[in-house]
Amino acid sequence: MKDNWVEIYDTTLRDGAQGEGLAYSVEDKIKIARALDEIGVTYIEGGWPGANPKDVEFFERAKSVQLNNAAFAAFGSTRRANGMAADDAVVQGLLAAQTPVVTIFGKSWDFHVDVALKTTLEENLRMIADTVSHLKSCGRRVFYDAEHFFDGFRANAEYALDTLAAAAQAGAETIILCDTNGGRLPEEIADAVALVRKRIPNVRIGIHCHNDSELAVANSLAAVEAGATHVQGVMNGYGERCGNANLCSVIPNLELKMNRRCLPDGKLKLLTHTSRYINEVANLVPNERAAFVGRSAFAHKGGIHVSAITKAKETYEHINPEDVGNETRVLVSDQSGVSNIRFKSDDIGEEFAKKPEAARRLLAQLKTLEFEGYSFEDAEASFRLLALSALGKRKHFFETIEYRIWLGSLNEPEAIVRLKVGDEEEHTASLGDGPVHALDQALRKALRRHYPKIDQFHLIDFKVRILDGEHATAAKTRVHVETSDGERSWNTVGVAGNIIAASWAALVESIEYGLQIS
Amino acid sequence: MKDNWVEIYDTTLRDGAQGEGLAYSVEDKIKIARALDEIGVTYIEGGWPGANPKDVEFFERAKSVQLNNAAFAAFGSTRRANGMAADDAVVQGLLAAQTPVVTIFGKSWDFHVDVALKTTLEENLRMIADTVSHLKSCGRRVFYDAEHFFDGFRANAEYALDTLAAAAQAGAETIILCDTNGGRLPEEIADAVALVRKRIPNVRIGIHCHNDSELAVANSLAAVEAGATHVQGVMNGYGERCGNANLCSVIPNLELKMNRRCLPDGKLKLLTHTSRYINEVANLVPNERAAFVGRSAFAHKGGIHVSAITKAKETYEHINPEDVGNETRVLVSDQSGVSNIRFKSDDIGEEFAKKPEAARRLLAQLKTLEFEGYSFEDAEASFRLLALSALGKRKHFFETIEYRIWLGSLNEPEAIVRLKVGDEEEHTASLGDGPVHALDQALRKALRRHYPKIDQFHLIDFKVRILDGEHATAAKTRVHVETSDGERSWNTVGVAGNIIAASWAALVESIEYGLQIS
Repeated sequence: MKDNWVEIYDTTLRDGAQGEGLAYSVEDKIKIARALDEIGVTYIEGGWPGANPKDVEFFERAKSVQLNNAAFAAFGSTRRANGMAADDAVVQGLLAAQTPVVTIFGKSWDFHVDVALKTTLEENLRMIADTVSHLKSCGRRVFYDAEHFFDGFRANAEYALDTLAAAAQAGAETIILCDTNGGRLPEEIADAVALVRKRIPNVRIGIHCHNDSELAVANSLAAVEAGATHVQGVMNGYGERCGNANLCSVIPNLELKMNRRCLPDGKLKLLTHTSRYINEVANLVPNERAAFVGRSAFAHKGGIHVSAITKAKETYEHINPEDVGNETRVLVSDQSGVSNIRFKSDDIGEEFAKKPEAARRLLAQLKTLEFEGYSFEDAEASFRLLALSALGKRKHFFETIEYRIWLGSLNEPEAIVRLKVGDEEEHTASLGDGPVHALDQALRKALRRHYPKIDQFHLIDFKVRILDGEHATAAKTRVHVETSDGERSWNTVGVAGNIIAASWAALVESIEYGLQIS
Repeated sequence: MKDNWVEIYDTTLRDGAQGEGLAYSVEDKIKIARALDEIGVTYIEGGWPGANPKDVEFFERAKSVQLNNAAFAAFGSTRRANGMAADDAVVQGLLAAQTPVVTIFGKSWDFHVDVALKTTLEENLRMIADTVSHLKSCGRRVFYDAEHFFDGFRANAEYALDTLAAAAQAGAETIILCDTNGGRLPEEIADAVALVRKRIPNVRIGIHCHNDSELAVANSLAAVEAGATHVQGVMNGYGERCGNANLCSVIPNLELKMNRRCLPDGKLKLLTHTSRYINEVANLVPNERAAFVGRSAFAHKGGIHVSAITKAKETYEHINPEDVGNETRVLVSDQSGVSNIRFKSDDIGEEFAKKPEAARRLLAQLKTLEFEGYSFEDAEASFRLLALSALGKRKHFFETIEYRIWLGSLNEPEAIVRLKVGDEEEHTASLGDGPVHALDQALRKALRRHYPKIDQFHLIDFKVRILDGEHATAAKTRVHVETSDGERSWNTVGVAGNIIAASWAALVESIEYGLQIS
């Protein structure tokens, strides 16, 4: 490896799994491991064999997983106090996992040795040395995680350094300094790493940070600046409490800004996809604001920003989004200027460029509607219907006349819809699970004969926001609906004095837009 | 102010509002401003008057808002190229807002002057100087935001410094260095701030960071280390793209770890509450993993961690959660659940301590209801009604028989309610602005004769969440309502297959609880 390489040690499957709300199946873990290998991290920590049956099964299955870039690591603790490493159940479990790398953690903080481990400082050093040398003698590469190293270093620097020396002398290949509680600042991290590099030579130094102070990425980078060449972290920053250092930020910062290499050639472009895929498998709602990989990471809303990026994207983008597999997006809101409109409506954007009068009219209309409570950011289809109207290009498929709803605690919700298609009046009714569902069913029923393709449209999401809570039930309501025809999906919005009227407006536009693009 | 003070300039209402999915109403903005004043930030940037009608209205209303700790600031740009500051519409809008502080932004990056502003470097310097001195001459304190300062400093350091000098010489009180694109690293920030301090003396230096590299908090702290004494940021880190520097992390890091002061005595304990309140008003799903203020920030899942923290909390907690108004949570057994219940229901807690059987019954019921979609965190009144039931102490004031609703696009929503009070049946009806409003009116009308005090109850907030978006309009709905009797307020929750049924459940409990405590 060239000397600007930094090893990436991914612990999404082990430390990441401690996050609240996370519960991977073995199959999930195999899928995530394959994705991590594909993007090319150096090591994949698969779990703690022996700690739970799922991890034992994972390592069993992992034996037949062919990795192209990464190596598997199994994680566990040092042997128990006053025992033998060879007889220790945890150590035996680590060996049974048959991974090329074994990572063990031990205590660096004298307070923890005393309070949590309840043994002597000397015995703790022996536990570290014995466990490392036993695993080495069994043919494993051994990494040593120095738990709470930075807190230990503040409390009793010499003892903390002794624990590292014990691991290094026993043959640990890499020593990882852990900010286990996530409380330290970048300068402290950098100073301690630099000192360890001097005092414990001839061993690779790694860093393992937690995000309790929202500094895990900065702390990891500070450690690399100070000489660490191995970074542990988790994709999307999952993990106990506030999570682990987020590799989706650590990796691009190292590669794009600090002239380090972490992934094989061309793999950084997989970052956004890998992040989203892992969110998907973990069944977690993605953080849209996530640096580099979030859906909003290169989304522009302010009119001034949009006007500038149409001239040169680097005016408001710190990197080229394509370098991490992400993309520029332009949002519409009451912050917008005319340039947002031109940029956003891409294919019809040229027409607006030729008709500045229409663009200004549309912008004025948008601002008025947003003042009334509309929000088009998440309602691209409603925005495009307005844009088509401003250009005089909106087609009209039907005209609504009336709807009525009956519902009560003792009967199923029922809706009646009257509308006109050309000269024909349709008047029909439907039941539903709730009032909006009944309305949606009745609307489709009335239109089906004229536009059979609406049978392919179906609602896939429905959101409600009360705009002015303090007027309580008399407040304005905004409804967003997302509709799909099986291939494409689109979003519409409705605002009204009550939820039914707002839903009706959003439903009607969802059908109109679907017909418009069919 | 003592020399370890750092001013907090909050821009939740202005730069924060650029975040995707955010659309504050004027009322939301007033509520957030009051919360920011309560926690004691130094400045509240309210918006960009003139950029949109909502911000003009906000500043109009802000004139009658009494602040105890903070001062309002209005934000805008320098005058246009080749114009006069006094005639400039933006500058006039800033003055019309009548705030003690006006913050203007200008260009520091020669590339931006050329590409975005399309003027000369000399005219840009005049635009900065003219605008600052005109605002000063009109009696305003003027802050100068040097947009893209760090990028400009890399590209053409001397010109970037000239723009700062222009603002300082014209009378700017504070000069804020902005990492507008969020692309810079902590070391670069620190070096540039230190140099600016030398080159532009006698002016306060501020920092304004964005989170595009997940480094906004670290960059803000690095700037303070290097001499900045004014930090701009946003509560919960909302903002364009990846958001602004998160004040919920910046403030406790400065106060608890860097020996700086930001908030008045005792106010740091309001941090978690303020963060959650603002999420609530903004109607954003809170980030549970958020540092310091997240629900998971001090939640322990791993068995080893839980065992250690029962011995000493500092084994796995970097600060005392109470210092920021948060709390330790242990994600384990039913046993801890029971102690939670005792803790939560405070005044009736002692009774549960005497009746462990009732506590276990209540716990089982809570778990079932939460599995069905209930959430009692924001519904203390519904929780207490359940607790009273479990103790056999809940009073029954009426029995509901039936409700029905009619509504349509051509007529006003109408509700009918039938219920029993003792042996008497009440059967009545009411119109309303929407179906839930009509239901609420009819319910009160039916009960008024028996419980005249319900005339004092009124709904003050109403929130809807669709629990299972992908089932679209057939999804489950959760409704929270907040009710007040003029002195106290209480929250109830209802969950059902449609919004009307869920609202009915929450409304009925709101009345029951009000009668219970009257």
